[in-house]
Amino acid sequence: MIREDVKLFNFHASPFGQRVIWALKLKGVDYECIEEDIFNKSNLLLELNPVHKKVPVLVHRNKPIAESLVILEYIDETWKQYPLMPQNPYQRAHARFWANFAEQKLLVAARIARLSSGEEQGKAVNEAREAMEKIEEEIKGKKFFGGDKIGYLDIVIGWISYWIPVWEEVGSMKILDPLKFPAINAWITNFLSHPTINDTLPQRDKMVVYYHSRRKEVSPS
Amino acid sequence: MIREDVKLFNFHASPFGQRVIWALKLKGVDYECIEEDIFNKSNLLLELNPVHKKVPVLVHRNKPIAESLVILEYIDETWKQYPLMPQNPYQRAHARFWANFAEQKLLVAARIARLSSGEEQGKAVNEAREAMEKIEEEIKGKKFFGGDKIGYLDIVIGWISYWIPVWEEVGSMKILDPLKFPAINAWITNFLSHPTINDTLPQRDKMVVYYHSRRKEVSPS
Repeated sequence: MIREDVKLFNFHASPFGQRVIWALKLKGVDYECIEEDIFNKSNLLLELNPVHKKVPVLVHRNKPIAESLVILEYIDETWKQYPLMPQNPYQRAHARFWANFAEQKLLVAARIARLSSGEEQGKAVNEAREAMEKIEEEIKGKKFFGGDKIGYLDIVIGWISYWIPVWEEVGSMKILDPLKFPAINAWITNFLSHPTINDTLPQRDKMVVYYHSRRKEVSPS
Repeated sequence: MIREDVKLFNFHASPFGQRVIWALKLKGVDYECIEEDIFNKSNLLLELNPVHKKVPVLVHRNKPIAESLVILEYIDETWKQYPLMPQNPYQRAHARFWANFAEQKLLVAARIARLSSGEEQGKAVNEAREAMEKIEEEIKGKKFFGGDKIGYLDIVIGWISYWIPVWEEVGSMKILDPLKFPAINAWITNFLSHPTINDTLPQRDKMVVYYHSRRKEVSPS
């Protein structure tokens, strides 16, 4: 275990913060986790990330880094053990392309689906499934997106495995149809059964409570 | 000049394609430019970028790479001369952070401002200016975002220098107030007076005609 001055400002239900936790754990980098109350953010968080005012923020040797995909690349460039990115520039471009795709198309649609209902929700679920179809093609025949081991793209897309089922429950909708997405479902099993991934997951019941509260803010009953 | 099998599928008025041109030119990599008719895309483009169906696409040794920020990192990792990214991981994270910020906050708002009018346009112009204020702080006291020479972030944000004035003209609005953004305006002068940047700019009058036509599609008179 590498012990350096590494702090992570996070919120337990954040899929973005979870990426950073997975990356640090896979690298074997020890860190101190500071849980933020995202309804009442600390002055320190606002100082560390004045532009977006959001978790996660990684602070390494007193220098703050924000935005989870930026943090992942920083971690991979700073601690060389267990490389997350492929070494070949074309494969790196491929991983970054699919990371951006999942972020722009799937995450945005799934977020709307968890917060909305009726026609708006139906449209968002369809968009999420369309994005999922492309990701299904991408993972077909592979154990992980990174090949035989968990890599950058697995970490970026990893929230699918644990967050989408919670969001489906909270939003009373279904994105991850096992019949339509057998390869993604197989990947989810592989991913979640990896000890480093499994051991660091937030408590499901607390996540359900949190996401129910976010949904009620948008459409109070 | 490096001569390899490099093709760029582009559209002359694309700020995204222009990033790729600037990067290749700064690196001294020769390429063949294939102009796409974006109103009637070629089958080849649809094959090369089936997910987004958009320019730019860089094809290097028959391998296609899409999405301009992904292409920039590929170029920097493939041809090592004239490094675009800083070498230090923290500075790299800093450059990526601001690249994403400009993309998510400034570009999105400026695009709405060029296509809309009335209240919607006023709101978008304000959002664009708010993003610009943060970028103003970032460039203050520096010749380029990359320091003394043009780097990754200059290329990513470079469209501000030439596209925003065209969009202001076409949309009859003002984002780039010289009194509010003196440091950005000084950077624009530095950036546009660099021969590699200046020599590769698309014709302004053609851009004005194109962006007028896009605006008319949205709000036909």
